[in-house]
Amino acid sequence: MMKEFFDPVGVAVVGASREPGKLGHEILRNIIDAGYKGGLYPINPKSPDVLGLKCYTSVKEIPSQVDLAVIVVPSRFVPSVIADCGVKGVKAAIIISGGFRETGEAGAQIEKQLMDNAKTAGVRIIGPNCQGVNSTTSGLCATWPLVKVKGPISVASQSGTVVAAIGCWAENDGIGVSKLVALGNKCDVDEIELLEYFGRDDETKVIGLYIEGTRDGRKFIETAKRITKQKPVVVLKGGRTEKGIVAAQSHTKSMAGLDRVFDAAFKRAGIIRASSIDEMYDACKALSALPLPAGANVLIITSSGGSGILATDACEELGLNVVDLPVNIGEDLKQKLPPECIIRNPLDLTGSATSQLYDSVLSTILPSDTVNSAIVIIGDPMPGITEVVEKHLGGGKPIIPVMLGGGKAEDEEFAKMASRKIAAYRSPSRGAQALASLFKYANVSRA
Amino acid sequence: MMKEFFDPVGVAVVGASREPGKLGHEILRNIIDAGYKGGLYPINPKSPDVLGLKCYTSVKEIPSQVDLAVIVVPSRFVPSVIADCGVKGVKAAIIISGGFRETGEAGAQIEKQLMDNAKTAGVRIIGPNCQGVNSTTSGLCATWPLVKVKGPISVASQSGTVVAAIGCWAENDGIGVSKLVALGNKCDVDEIELLEYFGRDDETKVIGLYIEGTRDGRKFIETAKRITKQKPVVVLKGGRTEKGIVAAQSHTKSMAGLDRVFDAAFKRAGIIRASSIDEMYDACKALSALPLPAGANVLIITSSGGSGILATDACEELGLNVVDLPVNIGEDLKQKLPPECIIRNPLDLTGSATSQLYDSVLSTILPSDTVNSAIVIIGDPMPGITEVVEKHLGGGKPIIPVMLGGGKAEDEEFAKMASRKIAAYRSPSRGAQALASLFKYANVSRA
Repeated sequence: MMKEFFDPVGVAVVGASREPGKLGHEILRNIIDAGYKGGLYPINPKSPDVLGLKCYTSVKEIPSQVDLAVIVVPSRFVPSVIADCGVKGVKAAIIISGGFRETGEAGAQIEKQLMDNAKTAGVRIIGPNCQGVNSTTSGLCATWPLVKVKGPISVASQSGTVVAAIGCWAENDGIGVSKLVALGNKCDVDEIELLEYFGRDDETKVIGLYIEGTRDGRKFIETAKRITKQKPVVVLKGGRTEKGIVAAQSHTKSMAGLDRVFDAAFKRAGIIRASSIDEMYDACKALSALPLPAGANVLIITSSGGSGILATDACEELGLNVVDLPVNIGEDLKQKLPPECIIRNPLDLTGSATSQLYDSVLSTILPSDTVNSAIVIIGDPMPGITEVVEKHLGGGKPIIPVMLGGGKAEDEEFAKMASRKIAAYRSPSRGAQALASLFKYANVSRA
Repeated sequence: MMKEFFDPVGVAVVGASREPGKLGHEILRNIIDAGYKGGLYPINPKSPDVLGLKCYTSVKEIPSQVDLAVIVVPSRFVPSVIADCGVKGVKAAIIISGGFRETGEAGAQIEKQLMDNAKTAGVRIIGPNCQGVNSTTSGLCATWPLVKVKGPISVASQSGTVVAAIGCWAENDGIGVSKLVALGNKCDVDEIELLEYFGRDDETKVIGLYIEGTRDGRKFIETAKRITKQKPVVVLKGGRTEKGIVAAQSHTKSMAGLDRVFDAAFKRAGIIRASSIDEMYDACKALSALPLPAGANVLIITSSGGSGILATDACEELGLNVVDLPVNIGEDLKQKLPPECIIRNPLDLTGSATSQLYDSVLSTILPSDTVNSAIVIIGDPMPGITEVVEKHLGGGKPIIPVMLGGGKAEDEEFAKMASRKIAAYRSPSRGAQALASLFKYANVSRA
């Protein structure tokens, strides 16, 4: 029943506009630019066409099948638009317009009426008062900004901006997204139903949620508990502090409970909790691109002594174990590496580092049972390092490349890694955090 | 006496090479590309010229004044090069070559000999085994990668990569740097002397240090205590955890003590402590670009409800106060803002946000004594917002713009802010962290 939101046969944009800058224009253009292949029908009684597409005066007039309506007209018109959708057989509506419950009693009345009409008409609703939906699979970018790169991450969010930020970052990093949903007022579809749907969805490998509260805490946790057995769920919760909770209540009228109650429940449900958008994104990226480590033991290889130490601190603080190297491996490496290399963990290749040396170290240590994962820090331009990382990722253990201090050459190498869907990071602490999220989920999936 | 490192009359590059990729080539090229205006003399007995510059066989042969030698020849040659420097009257040498104390007893002997020669010859040394020095003021990029944007941040670091990363980020953000120093083995000049020098240096407004330990803890803390009264000092210390400390000992033979001892001493000295390179950079950036807040009270304005809540959580957790708005200001804003705006702190302009509305809110609230600073979150493309932020920065209170979820339009606006030296951030948590560092230093400078 949720399929019509993400892979609809025919889409109507109600309130499509000829005027650039208006939502009704930008959203229609993003759907076109994202490459949606189905029938696309702007609804605007005052224009004959918008962006080269013939306009209709109502969804009822569209001659072909329409599964989804994307609605941007003022709130007072929305209940009747929903009724029209019912007549036409439209099964799903994304209501982007604001002016509902969030604005007070009058808006709440309109929201109630629209839900009554939706129930009668059998139309499912995402929103109202939301930033829309992006389904890269079907090229349906019914939101903004335009994000097109297909990938394994799906996110549902009570904040349109949080989900937009993650979409933008995932696009820049070449990781991409599958489905992005801004929940808005959640008058019908909520995070629990989407969690359930993303759990079943084969294209979604990692689920991200930004929530400020949930209508049914028990059901949320029970659903999450079931889903996290199959795929990772990363949750960022707004409203950790007293003032944050009050602000959340203003924002989405959420029943935001005490943070430590959420924290305990999240742990029980196997949820990976993030404390910032950056951390949420970093975790989703790692979980979508990398295998899980079989244990806490991490090998750190670096060309930068300082960065290796900072990564060691971060790993140890996050519950990872920067394990001592077995004696025989140390002896072996002494034969293979230049004398200036510091053979311990973190293993410092020093300024002598080359891709061949990284390759040599990874070949020697990574197959050992002592080590479950590697952080590979590259502090200088290092031609060929992408290929080395790619090769050793084939061994089945997670490798986190961290690149910094390399100027333009680094940017180019980072883009190269992005083009090969390698999850690379820009600082030792962020790389360590990402690895820690893999380790946390490894424990969940084994439990 | 340190001036010759940063603003030398004449520079010799000992070990200059014709071969791209070699350090002796890259460093000479970076000095040329950074625009150094003084005499530049490659030393290479085997080539008549390198990169269009006439070569000499020894520094002694250079016919003009040379204050600084940048040395990249193998370690065994370095003591005699230093002796030659003494003969020529060269006052400072940056020794980039490795192969000294860090490699064992034989290297330690060479290092001792080079220091003996340096003392006899009256040559000051940065390094050996270091990534060099960048002084944007004199266009002297005797390091890599090439970083040219002039700015108010100076950094000394026991890790070349840490200082290179900060240089790259500061260049990308338009903030720029003044002096970057990779300390290496610190056989002569150390972080204490540089802290002292940066403290006196008019071009340095903010000092960043990455250290793993210090030879004279008491002197370091006493020096810092004096300097932090005049300008902020941000310190990142490698070796917080037991394993990090052991790794630091391998890296720079540092006497890294217990972390909580450092932590207490840093606090006493008024040092802003960072826990990651990102945090160190974010703090330096804010401290270099923004005025200090007179108190903890912060106003959060946002177009994104969720981001406002996340910023509220982050601020409150960091000791800032997301203060309640005075009743009269609230009443005033009710007249000025559309009804859907949520008038509280965080103040949510919702999807209706425009630059004019941000301007209106900042004009109404920022002059009030209730508020000491503002975080301005922009969750959508917002034409004109740079000008609004710039205008209100004129009021003397710090304003932290945070931009996310805006796609290409956001990147353009971010670049515009960078071109005007406005310190903008890409996530609520990083913006809040940056503001917290301003607040911490405000307390230090008032103490």
